[in-house]
Amino acid sequence: MQHFTSRKDVTDIQALLKKAQSVSADPFQQTELGKNKTLGLIFFNSSLRTRLSTQKAAANLGMNCIVMNIGTDGWKLEFQDGTVMDQDKAEHAKDAIAVMGSYCDILGVRAFPGLKDRKIDYEEQILNSFIQYAGVPVVSLESSTLHPLQSFADLISIENHKKTEKPKVVLTWAPHPRALPQAVGNSFVEWMKETDYELVVTHPEGYELAEKFSDGVKVEYDQRKAFEGADFVYAKNWSSYSSYGQILSQDRSWVVDGAKMALTNDAHFMHCLPVRRNVVVADEVIDSPNSLVIQQAANRVVSAQTVLETLLEAL
Amino acid sequence: MQHFTSRKDVTDIQALLKKAQSVSADPFQQTELGKNKTLGLIFFNSSLRTRLSTQKAAANLGMNCIVMNIGTDGWKLEFQDGTVMDQDKAEHAKDAIAVMGSYCDILGVRAFPGLKDRKIDYEEQILNSFIQYAGVPVVSLESSTLHPLQSFADLISIENHKKTEKPKVVLTWAPHPRALPQAVGNSFVEWMKETDYELVVTHPEGYELAEKFSDGVKVEYDQRKAFEGADFVYAKNWSSYSSYGQILSQDRSWVVDGAKMALTNDAHFMHCLPVRRNVVVADEVIDSPNSLVIQQAANRVVSAQTVLETLLEAL
Amino acid sequence: MQHFTSRKDVTDIQALLKKAQSVSADPFQQTELGKNKTLGLIFFNSSLRTRLSTQKAAANLGMNCIVMNIGTDGWKLEFQDGTVMDQDKAEHAKDAIAVMGSYCDILGVRAFPGLKDRKIDYEEQILNSFIQYAGVPVVSLESSTLHPLQSFADLISIENHKKTEKPKVVLTWAPHPRALPQAVGNSFVEWMKETDYELVVTHPEGYELAEKFSDGVKVEYDQRKAFEGADFVYAKNWSSYSSYGQILSQDRSWVVDGAKMALTNDAHFMHCLPVRRNVVVADEVIDSPNSLVIQQAANRVVSAQTVLETLLEAL
Repeated sequence: MQHFTSRKDVTDIQALLKKAQSVSADPFQQTELGKNKTLGLIFFNSSLRTRLSTQKAAANLGMNCIVMNIGTDGWKLEFQDGTVMDQDKAEHAKDAIAVMGSYCDILGVRAFPGLKDRKIDYEEQILNSFIQYAGVPVVSLESSTLHPLQSFADLISIENHKKTEKPKVVLTWAPHPRALPQAVGNSFVEWMKETDYELVVTHPEGYELAEKFSDGVKVEYDQRKAFEGADFVYAKNWSSYSSYGQILSQDRSWVVDGAKMALTNDAHFMHCLPVRRNVVVADEVIDSPNSLVIQQAANRVVSAQTVLETLLEAL
Repeated sequence: MQHFTSRKDVTDIQALLKKAQSVSADPFQQTELGKNKTLGLIFFNSSLRTRLSTQKAAANLGMNCIVMNIGTDGWKLEFQDGTVMDQDKAEHAKDAIAVMGSYCDILGVRAFPGLKDRKIDYEEQILNSFIQYAGVPVVSLESSTLHPLQSFADLISIENHKKTEKPKVVLTWAPHPRALPQAVGNSFVEWMKETDYELVVTHPEGYELAEKFSDGVKVEYDQRKAFEGADFVYAKNWSSYSSYGQILSQDRSWVVDGAKMALTNDAHFMHCLPVRRNVVVADEVIDSPNSLVIQQAANRVVSAQTVLETLLEAL
Repeated sequence: MQHFTSRKDVTDIQALLKKAQSVSADPFQQTELGKNKTLGLIFFNSSLRTRLSTQKAAANLGMNCIVMNIGTDGWKLEFQDGTVMDQDKAEHAKDAIAVMGSYCDILGVRAFPGLKDRKIDYEEQILNSFIQYAGVPVVSLESSTLHPLQSFADLISIENHKKTEKPKVVLTWAPHPRALPQAVGNSFVEWMKETDYELVVTHPEGYELAEKFSDGVKVEYDQRKAFEGADFVYAKNWSSYSSYGQILSQDRSWVVDGAKMALTNDAHFMHCLPVRRNVVVADEVIDSPNSLVIQQAANRVVSAQTVLETLLEAL
């Protein structure tokens, strides 16, 4: 594994899962591995879980961790090549990233999409600039189109709680007052496709995920039908991919509530957080014993630590 | 000690003081105690002394420390239960706090009052949400109504400098251009009441502190009379508790100056900082050898380290 | 060395360079030196390289590092003595700095000039307040008039790449859309004057650097003539010192491009970054193998670590 930006960067997902179990069982078995190594966490956007869990993971490995919020600690970066930089961007990304790479042994970067121009977002300009110029392994802390540390944590959570070999896993769209990225949805199906699980995605028409990631995945437009017999229900809002970045529906009938959960096989409820309560999911569901949201979040440390450990071993 | 949010959390104040003396004498005797332990410092408001001194205290104990400014690093949190979260709050506190608790062994939180609604502020919604949902010990880094790490540092400072067993300690209100919380004043009297000191509070009428904390404390409305024979003069502004959050007086005659200090028993001057010079206190007083303000601030490390050490030992 | 704020704080520059070479060869030979020592990095302005490289340097020495952005993490400081502080400044610098000094073993501070009033800027009010009140060694992370950590990194870079004993080093002004400080230019000539190098400064008339630092340095107003035979070309914009803080020229003919570099002795290109591409320097130059900009930035760790190591040894 050279970088960690997508399911595709993982050569052996079962080996990674096995390592995660070991990390989870004893988080402090490798406190010397990161000695004299520096992790740089570069945030172009806000973060709570990713920020804290990745710092915690680095600490567990004995790494030094430097956090930088580009917007407030630094200045705007230029990403276009060949520009005459006489406007508001004070530094070119290729210079800033090469410098950050010279200070760090691994770089993590969070960069959300603009949701204005699909081509630009799906080209992953910021993430790919890091890969191109950093000269060190790059970990995605959520990019424009994917959120692999989250998906790996989700996979770990499902593995920990599945009661059958091939559980039915349902990813359901849910309403939200703001236009959100497709990254969590894209990434979840990208990872789930690699498992033996029965995967079903349900959403209103027009909310189809990018084929690039969702190709071959079963879509069921009837949410109640999709929930039938589900072992895991993963709720998440995303904006439209086809009508790019738009909110096509705020239909509150898509909220995940107790009545719908009653259709399932006593399913666990999942969400990556932050979540809008009583918009995406009813309190009765997220506060029930079947809710895995806090375990998912806790597994973000396991996920990040497993990935960092793998990258450190390969340095 | 399960949490540290008030004098009431301390079972044996003399034992805590004794531990503080030991911490002060050798801050590096317990550098292994915090190994593999993480302290999360969550700031809803600005901070200088608390931010730096608590990080320093954690480092002295070998703890890993993660700092998060909710406003700039993250997003707004919802604190009301049952809300349909379709407005500007992106995450419910109960979820965010449970997640932060899953990453940290101890959580510190700073949350100032709004000074609009007394009932809401004195209910300590944010602090109590942390206690309710964190699942780990919570340390107040100043809440809506109390500032125990400051008061403990103040107590340490008085103990270090008292010349008699029962010194006269005067807390005096002073003018200020902005409406400030009552937390430092409330907290100071809460702690001082537990000592053998002669405690007098002086302020203009209408500035009585919350009975909940000041009950039984002697009030002297004549500032000059209060200063007579004082061994310690602690200055601090606070807004009105009865006319909640209001500035009732900007009377500059309440400034602590050399003439008033001349009425005392060569008293030490104290203030928690930050202080408005020549509004709250005259330069001649705060810059005199009798001023303890820098020692008080330095004792914030001792105070925080003693508290963290106690909590770590109980984990 | 008591503080590190200027070339003048260094008693033996050759000894410092020798130590830098040792640091560069093995950055982890002194990981115990900073044990139980705390470095405070106080930023009044944005920073990328300085922020990251100094944290990295501290980590390499085993120091604990606390970063504080005065503007966003804290509040405005008053620097004038004797003020009645009833306006927007919540704390006097003399109090805040003494407190920060009580928490830290070494303090670094970044404070840019206002570029409005030359006398105020060249008095270095903020930096000198730190020296006056901190009570611990102070490291300039770029002050109003100098940037010694950068200049020392530049010197290390030139030493690493010089092909002759007395290389010709040219500092050239270049255009920029915003008014920038003179600190990098001032500091570069202050350090270069102490070497055997042939130093030439070139800029449009009116851009003469402060005599205090540039006294005795050769100025050549014809940029092309200055470049002839150069071994190193260091580009940098600065605003006018005589017409203080003003932009007198945006003349794009001063950009450093391939045609001008062809006049040199196959010169290395240098810049402290961040740089406006195709305004200050053409892509063809900064992207050429002769460009040292990333090495200069990488040497910021060496520079900072050498300085911190020297200060730690003297504690």
